[in-house]
Amino acid sequence: MNAWGNRLKLSIFGESHGPAIGIVIDGLPAGEAIDAAETAREMARRAPGGNDLSTARNEPDEVVILSGILRDKTTGAPVCGVIYNRDARSRDYDTILRPGHADWTALLKFGGYADLRGGGHFSGRLTAPLVFAGSIAKQILSRRGVEICARITAIGGVSDEPAREEYGSASEFRAALAADFPASAEIAEAMKAEIRAAKERGDSVGGVVEAAVFGLRGGIGEPFFGSMESAAASLLFSIPAVKGVEFGRGFRLASMRGSEANDAIRLENGRIVSRTNNSGGILGGITNGMPIVARAAFKPTASIALPQESVDAASKQETTLRILGRHDPCVAPRAVPAVEASLALCALDGLLVSGDGLLK
Amino acid sequence: MNAWGNRLKLSIFGESHGPAIGIVIDGLPAGEAIDAAETAREMARRAPGGNDLSTARNEPDEVVILSGILRDKTTGAPVCGVIYNRDARSRDYDTILRPGHADWTALLKFGGYADLRGGGHFSGRLTAPLVFAGSIAKQILSRRGVEICARITAIGGVSDEPAREEYGSASEFRAALAADFPASAEIAEAMKAEIRAAKERGDSVGGVVEAAVFGLRGGIGEPFFGSMESAAASLLFSIPAVKGVEFGRGFRLASMRGSEANDAIRLENGRIVSRTNNSGGILGGITNGMPIVARAAFKPTASIALPQESVDAASKQETTLRILGRHDPCVAPRAVPAVEASLALCALDGLLVSGDGLLK
Amino acid sequence: MNAWGNRLKLSIFGESHGPAIGIVIDGLPAGEAIDAAETAREMARRAPGGNDLSTARNEPDEVVILSGILRDKTTGAPVCGVIYNRDARSRDYDTILRPGHADWTALLKFGGYADLRGGGHFSGRLTAPLVFAGSIAKQILSRRGVEICARITAIGGVSDEPAREEYGSASEFRAALAADFPASAEIAEAMKAEIRAAKERGDSVGGVVEAAVFGLRGGIGEPFFGSMESAAASLLFSIPAVKGVEFGRGFRLASMRGSEANDAIRLENGRIVSRTNNSGGILGGITNGMPIVARAAFKPTASIALPQESVDAASKQETTLRILGRHDPCVAPRAVPAVEASLALCALDGLLVSGDGLLK
Amino acid sequence: MNAWGNRLKLSIFGESHGPAIGIVIDGLPAGEAIDAAETAREMARRAPGGNDLSTARNEPDEVVILSGILRDKTTGAPVCGVIYNRDARSRDYDTILRPGHADWTALLKFGGYADLRGGGHFSGRLTAPLVFAGSIAKQILSRRGVEICARITAIGGVSDEPAREEYGSASEFRAALAADFPASAEIAEAMKAEIRAAKERGDSVGGVVEAAVFGLRGGIGEPFFGSMESAAASLLFSIPAVKGVEFGRGFRLASMRGSEANDAIRLENGRIVSRTNNSGGILGGITNGMPIVARAAFKPTASIALPQESVDAASKQETTLRILGRHDPCVAPRAVPAVEASLALCALDGLLVSGDGLLK
Repeated sequence: MNAWGNRLKLSIFGESHGPAIGIVIDGLPAGEAIDAAETAREMARRAPGGNDLSTARNEPDEVVILSGILRDKTTGAPVCGVIYNRDARSRDYDTILRPGHADWTALLKFGGYADLRGGGHFSGRLTAPLVFAGSIAKQILSRRGVEICARITAIGGVSDEPAREEYGSASEFRAALAADFPASAEIAEAMKAEIRAAKERGDSVGGVVEAAVFGLRGGIGEPFFGSMESAAASLLFSIPAVKGVEFGRGFRLASMRGSEANDAIRLENGRIVSRTNNSGGILGGITNGMPIVARAAFKPTASIALPQESVDAASKQETTLRILGRHDPCVAPRAVPAVEASLALCALDGLLVSGDGLLK
Repeated sequence: MNAWGNRLKLSIFGESHGPAIGIVIDGLPAGEAIDAAETAREMARRAPGGNDLSTARNEPDEVVILSGILRDKTTGAPVCGVIYNRDARSRDYDTILRPGHADWTALLKFGGYADLRGGGHFSGRLTAPLVFAGSIAKQILSRRGVEICARITAIGGVSDEPAREEYGSASEFRAALAADFPASAEIAEAMKAEIRAAKERGDSVGGVVEAAVFGLRGGIGEPFFGSMESAAASLLFSIPAVKGVEFGRGFRLASMRGSEANDAIRLENGRIVSRTNNSGGILGGITNGMPIVARAAFKPTASIALPQESVDAASKQETTLRILGRHDPCVAPRAVPAVEASLALCALDGLLVSGDGLLK
Repeated sequence: MNAWGNRLKLSIFGESHGPAIGIVIDGLPAGEAIDAAETAREMARRAPGGNDLSTARNEPDEVVILSGILRDKTTGAPVCGVIYNRDARSRDYDTILRPGHADWTALLKFGGYADLRGGGHFSGRLTAPLVFAGSIAKQILSRRGVEICARITAIGGVSDEPAREEYGSASEFRAALAADFPASAEIAEAMKAEIRAAKERGDSVGGVVEAAVFGLRGGIGEPFFGSMESAAASLLFSIPAVKGVEFGRGFRLASMRGSEANDAIRLENGRIVSRTNNSGGILGGITNGMPIVARAAFKPTASIALPQESVDAASKQETTLRILGRHDPCVAPRAVPAVEASLALCALDGLLVSGDGLLK
Repeated sequence: MNAWGNRLKLSIFGESHGPAIGIVIDGLPAGEAIDAAETAREMARRAPGGNDLSTARNEPDEVVILSGILRDKTTGAPVCGVIYNRDARSRDYDTILRPGHADWTALLKFGGYADLRGGGHFSGRLTAPLVFAGSIAKQILSRRGVEICARITAIGGVSDEPAREEYGSASEFRAALAADFPASAEIAEAMKAEIRAAKERGDSVGGVVEAAVFGLRGGIGEPFFGSMESAAASLLFSIPAVKGVEFGRGFRLASMRGSEANDAIRLENGRIVSRTNNSGGILGGITNGMPIVARAAFKPTASIALPQESVDAASKQETTLRILGRHDPCVAPRAVPAVEASLALCALDGLLVSGDGLLK
């Protein structure tokens, strides 16, 4: 179902070239200050335009609050935020299936009734409402000492994995990033070059986004079905183009020995901590108070200018497809706030389930 | 919450050294034949013992059906299957936190009231009820031409990734496996050697399990929050020790170009298919009728004989921990049916949501 | 949570004097024709104004579709319908608690942050999105031979209960209603007089609304927690002012003997039917194919002109409250389509859960 | 689905003549003392036998805890309680549909595969696991000053409604009850006579059970879909034979004027309270701190000795049914703890959702 959450409930809606996209967020505590300027800054991080790395589609992604916020404070009733589509060029949808897109599966599921103009409900544009919801969660969490930040760790063949550093705080994490690109300063230029190279070829590249949650107390999450990893992964895999999710050392743990992988436990000023953080802050599905570290793998943008083999769904003929128009050569940079949003919503939901009495 | 599913609802319960573990499966169609012998075979795949690669704990893992099945057919009411614990050695639980275990986080969440004997509710033993539920789902799916199979693709440093072959059918998939180990015949012995080596060192190793669903029709799954990847990942990340999940080429897609990653679409006997299957049978969160391919990374078993740094939670003192007792040096082999179960339950839930009228 | 449904998911939002109210409906089958004119007619049944029995607030309650419908057909993606508030007089909210209103409880729950202007999220105005959702469900159901209709069976002291007739069809049900008031033609004038009398006194009256679902096949609903009565009641009790819900003979069954209450079963043209319908079409939580009959009791409108004892929440002083402004003297007439909507949504959700393959 | 709850999740299972019935309760706070003797007392209140008013079936209804409780304290993991069926006389199920039973609808839904021996999953016996879950909730609530009690207010033609008294406390409520029957001392004998009279005729009678929750703080519940009434009603309507549910004055509010129905608000020792409690402690779906008052109408037991018209589902012939065997002539007395359980679970779930930090 198009809903997510335990104590929070998210309902997302909208199509890329329809009247609007938006989200309903139910279960927020009342009386939480929401700074519209801060939300706008967050939306701007995801919005296209402004450089040669992203689509030329010009959408300001301004969120209109329809409910749940009064005089800049949550009322406790569901918050609905809407982004009206403006720069939607509604030429008719083509019947040639775009490889790597949901055209084919939407046809199978919705029998041809889906609105697929611009990707429709499957568009990466749907991450805008998610980023809006994440911005609200982040503001609520930030007042309680919980910070979420993310960066790109790989673009195509350029990678700074395995990460050597283990960040101790959000400010340390952010300080290591380049000024104009959400990746380590040392490697940002190489990543940008990789994106530009793909763009010039009429091609695209994939990437990996890593996020960390700092300051979340231990004891959040549930054993088994409600594990923190399950909750976070179900949200991360909602983001279009994500095909892999891992926590802590993730897939690298498969090639490690227990004596390397187990994080030694010790005391630090009387508090139980671990020496390393291979488990990414989660043991048995529950947070241990160390930073949560998650990574999401994004496949390359499916819309590329290069010719592709495909099938015309209307005529049932094989054909060659050439996609025109404005597309990001790599989704990872604009996905960074969506990954942060996912972890923020997960952390807030977990805190609320754990009865942290945020209301008080 | 300890529940999973949309049309199916799974509720799992039990602790490793308590009276029993079990699961309630609600939403199964009525009139489905369930072969107890087939279920027992499935349970035996997960059960320990029988060789030098797993723990010496001897649990037959016999499932007792408490409800929902009459004369070997589902009644339509919830099925509760219970496995009574027999070989549980209930010496008191130690207060030294075991690195990599949920001891620490259970303490944070449950304030010391958790039953952690043998891992308690966090034990890998909880995959037994999951395998039972999966066995029921597999029997229902099999009659409709849907088959699920899994294999190990990596153990420690031994890996046959990247997989070169793209299996066309379940029988082809199974034919490539070694007779006594769920991995490619060519590499099975090397994997077993890797496990034995870890065991001899008093250490453990991680691994990767890959599963495929064959024969599931397209159009299953939901856009965004209810994506097939979200549903499957939330179940896979429930399995203890899973720290990464990917679909199709997964994390490798991050380093690919769009022109490589996009699966070319073509016609095969009038049916739309893709030439490659990098997307793992899922586009836009919805199945396209190609095999679903998923991979789960398992960390090394946390319980190792080697001495480890830790903290005694009772005395709040740093100490050295030596874990005695019976533990699998690698969880991957016994996890194979749990990974299959996860995908089977996911496929069945998706079919039921899609209104396939299984009842008729 | 502010969500309802199993296969359908409803998320409602909005405050009476905020920018808008609306609803997200997820899980609708794709390709269903939705007639905007029909929806507008349904909205008009609930809208205020037009006669001396309702508030003078003038809201056309025009629904703007933000998503999920393209060229008058559902796309399969979530439908979001929004009603922008126009005639909202946003004078500041008074701190004197209005007896019978949610002012007091909103203060307790939301600590004074709730937007209570015009009743806020607790306003009867929130039934407008519900009626919109119901209109969609009714159009989908109608094409499958399922019709829902409702009437008022009691207003204050005027009642035509116990209902003598057992309607056989929707057309028969509707034919018995007065032209300008949704009650039996014989008693409509007396009911209107009762409402006018209350209004003249500066008072209000309660009422009972009865709804029937015709043409829904048997076998819909779940045993125990998911009973059809549970699902319908949870939706009916969401409607502001509903304080009682019953099915079939309802509370009157408590004073009956089994030999009277049991509906004798017989054959009618080879089909199993019951002679009477005391069970209201539901046995063991599951429909039997007879008309579903439900009744909802509405308390009198809480906002009355007569002076009332209350407390000023700001000054913590007892005081006398006089409510000015525009209020319905009886909510029952405008609630009729909301009750129909509840049963329609319940029927559609039940059909979808039962795998009726509406998609095909 | 056969699940209920927001923060709590209940999954019920079992069939009357199958191996066992039981329930899984997920989401309980850890460290809560559960007194097995207290639970047994609660189960005994529901158990049959012991007098001439109930069935002669002799089931001790002993609950075996399979998980989630260790050394008489909740562990935080799901609690599974099972009641093994002992006195089940498993003669084959008759194909003549019993009027008022789920035989007919189970046939429609489950196509004849349902286990209907003794009522199967539809049996009133399923209230035993509900009472067990309620007993746990009541013990947790009681330590926090929340008490739930219930009584019978009507049996057939004998009624002490409208209730004149408004109870101020649980002890006052309980003090008014007869020693051997859960109804006002003045009217208990007349009620018992009514039941005996029905039994002697080979017939049955219905009844009404009223429950009150004392000491629950205000601010619990949600607006609209998650109203306290919605949550409680969905649970109460799960109890077999319940056909009506009301809160406060309920259906009587329909015939009242606003000036009568509105509960005047006033101060009592600086605390906001209401003079009357017509709203049953709930306004706008949220508790106001006054006692919650709910009433459930039970239809007469469907199984009666008198001959009834019916249809043989196997031969598709009309026939006359004579039901032999042991049946309660009135379900209301044994349903009293099930109604209490429903409100207790509802109150606990609401408290947990509201983040009351029960964990601490």
